[in-house]
Amino acid sequence: METPTTMNELVRFEETLDQLTKDLPVCQVKNALRYALLGAGKRIRPRLIFSFLTKIGEDEFKVAAALEIIHTYSLIHDDLPALDNDDLRRGKPTVHKVYDEAIAILTGDALLNLAFETILFSHLEEKKKILCLQILARNAGLSGMILGQDQDMYPDNFQDSTIRIMYQNKTGKLLGCALALGCVLSDQPQLADQFQNIGENLGIFFQIQDDILEITGDPRLIGKSKDSDLKNEKKTYVAVLGLERAKKELTDLYDHISAQIKTILNDPTRLINLINEIKNRAH
Amino acid sequence: METPTTMNELVRFEETLDQLTKDLPVCQVKNALRYALLGAGKRIRPRLIFSFLTKIGEDEFKVAAALEIIHTYSLIHDDLPALDNDDLRRGKPTVHKVYDEAIAILTGDALLNLAFETILFSHLEEKKKILCLQILARNAGLSGMILGQDQDMYPDNFQDSTIRIMYQNKTGKLLGCALALGCVLSDQPQLADQFQNIGENLGIFFQIQDDILEITGDPRLIGKSKDSDLKNEKKTYVAVLGLERAKKELTDLYDHISAQIKTILNDPTRLINLINEIKNRAH
Repeated sequence: METPTTMNELVRFEETLDQLTKDLPVCQVKNALRYALLGAGKRIRPRLIFSFLTKIGEDEFKVAAALEIIHTYSLIHDDLPALDNDDLRRGKPTVHKVYDEAIAILTGDALLNLAFETILFSHLEEKKKILCLQILARNAGLSGMILGQDQDMYPDNFQDSTIRIMYQNKTGKLLGCALALGCVLSDQPQLADQFQNIGENLGIFFQIQDDILEITGDPRLIGKSKDSDLKNEKKTYVAVLGLERAKKELTDLYDHISAQIKTILNDPTRLINLINEIKNRAH
Repeated sequence: METPTTMNELVRFEETLDQLTKDLPVCQVKNALRYALLGAGKRIRPRLIFSFLTKIGEDEFKVAAALEIIHTYSLIHDDLPALDNDDLRRGKPTVHKVYDEAIAILTGDALLNLAFETILFSHLEEKKKILCLQILARNAGLSGMILGQDQDMYPDNFQDSTIRIMYQNKTGKLLGCALALGCVLSDQPQLADQFQNIGENLGIFFQIQDDILEITGDPRLIGKSKDSDLKNEKKTYVAVLGLERAKKELTDLYDHISAQIKTILNDPTRLINLINEIKNRAH
């Protein structure tokens, strides 16, 4: 079976994150930012980008880093006491636990800014650079991920709010972003919209899986406090539909996603293998 | 005397902020974002940009809006209980007082993202668009304003930390950004670095003035709780150097800034008039 991401790619990706942050001015936010960013996380979004590429250069690593940086900032802010109030993330104490709330807020801000800086100061050709930034900004902002975070906290404020739409925004937008960026970086920008859509479905898939793992999984593997969503009385797919219907929905989504990918791509192996890896995750 | 900014420019600027935010998805963050952004603030940064322009089109208004949006996000996060814990801003209750802390955090995030989106989806020519974004990102991030926020909270962590350096980063970087953007939008990018530096000095000027007004000013005019910095036991210029030396420093900085501007610009009238307006402010 073709490996979705080679070890060498992952090592070079980690080096990119290190390079991008090691020369920042000495300050608490720098320490916190590197604590949160380096050597942790499943790197799913970068790996989704890499699955489109046969050759990954410095600039492609930077675009993938920018997306992972956005994802990391969103976790830091989500974990704050005013939001999800989580003590553990990626198996380590959360940023506001290790530092303090003020540093956690500023660290999130610094990372969001750094994501844009990273692509802006890359050597991508101008048109491609702007397109990557537009895709990133549209998905990360108030029409994307942040809308999902708002919907997650205030589900009653939305006329047509279903958990599915919230998952599509909160998690799906950045996964759609990853696939759309993969299309642009592999010089197939005409496929970006279709893959944006596939990625959004993958986000829904991922969140339903999270809801199921929250009930059935091992907290040491999940890397955050077990039952933390239940503790916060959040609506989850499992709570609303029950475990069996949630599992059925998961299977249907997988079939839909993999069928779509196989229809569009000539060589879908790497992306399908990566999605299978996600499907089979235990945490 | 030539008016630094015409009423018509300010009206069109407010319309730009309204246009940029009115079609965002319906949610709490949208409400909070418009509450913080619209119809308040002195709009100093946009007006600094406008002082370079003889004709202001839609795209120039958008760049100025992006900078004001960044400034507004920084105020919302600065006002949070974990940071400055301020109840009043621009004469109104702060965002976390009207909404809650979670919404205030997400609203700051959404604004920071929106600033980049605004320029990215403008119709500026590609080279100019990227240059504006680079100037914005470099000044707003951890090598700019956020470093200043970190230094403001943890002054003891910096070997060579003086209040002046903190002011230069926290306030100066965005004012430098305004002047540098003015240079780029008026097709004088070769002047951007010099004006970045002038703007950073203007930031130091502005902050020392704030410290003085904090002691001598009327809290109803200042628009935030009087003595809030003293309450938080922050070091201020006045506290460290005394009122008289702070006033002397202010005069010296003004002379330096205005001399520099008059040396560089053929027609410095608008910018000098605006700086005089800042110099003569009572709040």
